[in-house]
Amino acid sequence: MKNSKNSKLRIIPLGGLEAIGMNITAFEYGDSIIVVDCGLAFPEDDMYGIDLCVPVITYLQENAEKVKGFFITHGHEDHIGALPYVLLEVNVPIYATRLTIALIEHKLEEHNLLGTVKRKVVKYGQHINLGEFRVEFIKTNHSIQDAAALAIYSPVGVVVHTGDFKVDYTPVYGDAIDLQRFGELGKKGVLAIMCDSTNAERPGFTMSERKVGKTFEGIFSDHEKQRIIIATFASNVDRVQQIINTANKFGRKVVVEGRSMVNIISIASDLGYLDIPDNTLIDVEELRNYPDDRMVLITTGSQGEPLAALSRMANGSHKKVKISPNDLIVFSSNPIPGNEKAVSKIINELYRLSADVIFQDTHVSGHACQEEIKLIYSLLHPKYSIPVHGEFKHRKAQAQLARELGMPKENILMLSSGDVLEIDEDSAEVTDKVAAGSVFVDGLGIGDVGNIVMRDRQHLAEDGIIIVVLTLESGTGQVLAGPDIVSRGFVYVRGSESLMEEMQEVLNRTVFDLADRRVTDWTRIKSTIKDVLSDHVWKRTMRRPMIIPIIMEV
Amino acid sequence: MKNSKNSKLRIIPLGGLEAIGMNITAFEYGDSIIVVDCGLAFPEDDMYGIDLCVPVITYLQENAEKVKGFFITHGHEDHIGALPYVLLEVNVPIYATRLTIALIEHKLEEHNLLGTVKRKVVKYGQHINLGEFRVEFIKTNHSIQDAAALAIYSPVGVVVHTGDFKVDYTPVYGDAIDLQRFGELGKKGVLAIMCDSTNAERPGFTMSERKVGKTFEGIFSDHEKQRIIIATFASNVDRVQQIINTANKFGRKVVVEGRSMVNIISIASDLGYLDIPDNTLIDVEELRNYPDDRMVLITTGSQGEPLAALSRMANGSHKKVKISPNDLIVFSSNPIPGNEKAVSKIINELYRLSADVIFQDTHVSGHACQEEIKLIYSLLHPKYSIPVHGEFKHRKAQAQLARELGMPKENILMLSSGDVLEIDEDSAEVTDKVAAGSVFVDGLGIGDVGNIVMRDRQHLAEDGIIIVVLTLESGTGQVLAGPDIVSRGFVYVRGSESLMEEMQEVLNRTVFDLADRRVTDWTRIKSTIKDVLSDHVWKRTMRRPMIIPIIMEV
Repeated sequence: MKNSKNSKLRIIPLGGLEAIGMNITAFEYGDSIIVVDCGLAFPEDDMYGIDLCVPVITYLQENAEKVKGFFITHGHEDHIGALPYVLLEVNVPIYATRLTIALIEHKLEEHNLLGTVKRKVVKYGQHINLGEFRVEFIKTNHSIQDAAALAIYSPVGVVVHTGDFKVDYTPVYGDAIDLQRFGELGKKGVLAIMCDSTNAERPGFTMSERKVGKTFEGIFSDHEKQRIIIATFASNVDRVQQIINTANKFGRKVVVEGRSMVNIISIASDLGYLDIPDNTLIDVEELRNYPDDRMVLITTGSQGEPLAALSRMANGSHKKVKISPNDLIVFSSNPIPGNEKAVSKIINELYRLSADVIFQDTHVSGHACQEEIKLIYSLLHPKYSIPVHGEFKHRKAQAQLARELGMPKENILMLSSGDVLEIDEDSAEVTDKVAAGSVFVDGLGIGDVGNIVMRDRQHLAEDGIIIVVLTLESGTGQVLAGPDIVSRGFVYVRGSESLMEEMQEVLNRTVFDLADRRVTDWTRIKSTIKDVLSDHVWKRTMRRPMIIPIIMEV
Repeated sequence: MKNSKNSKLRIIPLGGLEAIGMNITAFEYGDSIIVVDCGLAFPEDDMYGIDLCVPVITYLQENAEKVKGFFITHGHEDHIGALPYVLLEVNVPIYATRLTIALIEHKLEEHNLLGTVKRKVVKYGQHINLGEFRVEFIKTNHSIQDAAALAIYSPVGVVVHTGDFKVDYTPVYGDAIDLQRFGELGKKGVLAIMCDSTNAERPGFTMSERKVGKTFEGIFSDHEKQRIIIATFASNVDRVQQIINTANKFGRKVVVEGRSMVNIISIASDLGYLDIPDNTLIDVEELRNYPDDRMVLITTGSQGEPLAALSRMANGSHKKVKISPNDLIVFSSNPIPGNEKAVSKIINELYRLSADVIFQDTHVSGHACQEEIKLIYSLLHPKYSIPVHGEFKHRKAQAQLARELGMPKENILMLSSGDVLEIDEDSAEVTDKVAAGSVFVDGLGIGDVGNIVMRDRQHLAEDGIIIVVLTLESGTGQVLAGPDIVSRGFVYVRGSESLMEEMQEVLNRTVFDLADRRVTDWTRIKSTIKDVLSDHVWKRTMRRPMIIPIIMEV
């Protein structure tokens, strides 16, 4: 008889359950661990200076000899973005569909990891045996091509992980989601579902990507004389395909702007995921050779990213594209929560330049709404539900759907990152907790900005810094130079002369009083300076700048 | 014959046209200036440490002898909040309706200005003569009571300023908007309209405030056993009235939480704008004496403000109110753009505590939608349109409505803050530009944080600071102490020892090399230190911390 740890499947989400992003989940049975997805998260507004967040993977490092491979559901950053960082610690093979592997390879190349990491392209329907697990890739639909759900076969049953998905009966490229296979799996018996919650609050059914194509045709025919600029997500190759098709139909040439857009289009068209008719794409340099009504620009920046091509066009700093009153800018995207103001800012700037803007009804989501989630549950008929991908409120909305479908409350498992869920046919419970959380990446540094540094940045941002320097005579503690005050981010010094003079007086008094009393204990001198100055500044300004006393000894 | 400057009306918006907030407009004719509204704006995300923004009023200061008074349309912060700051510079009487004056007085009291500022309560229909102007207050509806539109009679014609408004045929308190008076004014002839644009992008008609009352009844009857906590805007007294009415009907007591909520309810009920039946309000201390199903809490924090009562309840730091699984929290509000993530955060926290949350369909806007705007235009039939209150895109949407109603394009005036519009029956054009913009208020400081200080805060937030101190011998430039390095917000020093050691070496080499070469020019020493260290740090970390070299001389 096996021991408890070995006889149950352990599911350990290491990220992705507190917010959108940083999806990574370990599946452990006996001596085998496989990992599904390895994504990054973009920093919150108060994570100053941080470029991106990657998951804490202590558990994988500590069990490195067990880890057999990464299975990646699709090529979005929140599912692949942490690979170059995590692979430095745990270098095991990556399994994914063709476009997904191509996007991962592009990333590995940027990090000089292409030579040292094994990758394997997997086809839909293919099964990969790895340790105690077998993993089957199942066709789904999403806002990027080649998305897959995973059926994870373990000795205690099958877990189906949907990845990010929607049901699109009429996709632009390739087949619709393989609903038949979901039905087959369900008939045979599914232990648990881990299903995308992003749109679980939204009733109804997400529209087909083709709907946007119809909308584009209407827009192109209503704006025959204008230049058309369409901003969308770089990775939505089907959207780009539809823009190209519409441009072609209306006899317009296409320019692609924005580095990530150019990259992905080049990868997708090399692999045949994008069909660009000859003489359609032109270089941005040729723009001047064509009249407005013969041009379409496809650009990055639909989320208001300040450095993206569209932002630069809107604020007049784009070198090649100047916005004119004859431009129509179409936002083929919805603002991701948190980006609403940035997007509004660009729309306002474009309007100020007298351009036309369309920012509604030109996008469909890539995630399943309530009726699609219910469909997948009804096909799979799983015993347990583990809602994933989303904030708590989204996952709770999915839990509510599972309840409505008749799943008992105790079979719906609302996990947190780091929870160790032990599961089999008889039971499912959280038995342990492992390290989980975010590692900050800032420039080249991975993890060297932690909570202390971040709190300092937040303090500095709020009220600035006052530095007090002082040179003392070694032994006697007599003041040889200073105290001098230097401040940054506190007040406009030239306009606050009386405050600065007062601070200097308070400081002089304090320092010479300490010297008179022959205080030579640096710690005491520093803390006295800090307290006295802090009190005075608070009384005069109601601010709490960081105060750093520095003592030098000669 | 008068000169050009005197024969036309000058309309000078000093704020409120670039974003929501900070509404203030000067009207000048001959030797008279009157000012409509005097609001603040809340800081943008990247205005670190700033509490609020007030308008630049150089033009009013320079023409102080002309300024006759402030006319305030209603008591929201974006219309009254800058008064305590602006009155310090230009102290003239304030004219407004009763509740508006009461809210202003509360504010003046907090700033010790009650004794020095004249206020006059104005009734609807009343006309105030001031210099060359006559101003009539006209009843409107809004999400605060006692809102007024202003008919501003000048020698060249009547300008109607709507203030923030909606059309509510069945308001909770008082009368519906005085549409008849708008019609009368229109028949006599209106030179220009300055109309609220906030909802000009939204089709249809804003629902009556009473609709929310009906929704409350449904919620109360569906959740009979639960404690109900309703978060809404403190100033929406009609909303509070409806909650109290519903509580009363369902036999529940009411607790009010949050300082601003308590203040406004006390002011409104003293003046009779709020009808609280006896024995309905109880103190938060008495909460424990009542079962959940006999209680309603009304609270601040519906926008996710981190220090408001609801946030403290959600994160467990509220001293009097603990959230339990038997609580239902109702967000009777929509997130203001920019607050979406903060609101989501609280909803997630509440769900984690297993509470129920309702955050949809329990709010109506206080601003006119497209059909209401068209109604007001059709009643007033103004010659010119000057869309106000809103971002450019909102004002442009109103301009579009004016076009649809047949107004010639050249009669629609899209102004910017600081523009001087000279207008009469024959023409309307921007002839000049005066100073306009934001003054930052941080703690007690008004304007002492400007662009330079803000850029420093942003720089400090992004990458932190490295301070280099050095004591040199006077005259010889010999190094007596240091160079020492102190950093904050840059890297976690204990985890980055090799980087710190390298920096120290680079610095030692630089400083002793300078000393060897007998360089005594401080500016040169400082800039060399900065350049060398900055280069090294960038190469090693791809970060650009602020570097501050400080030299002391003994």
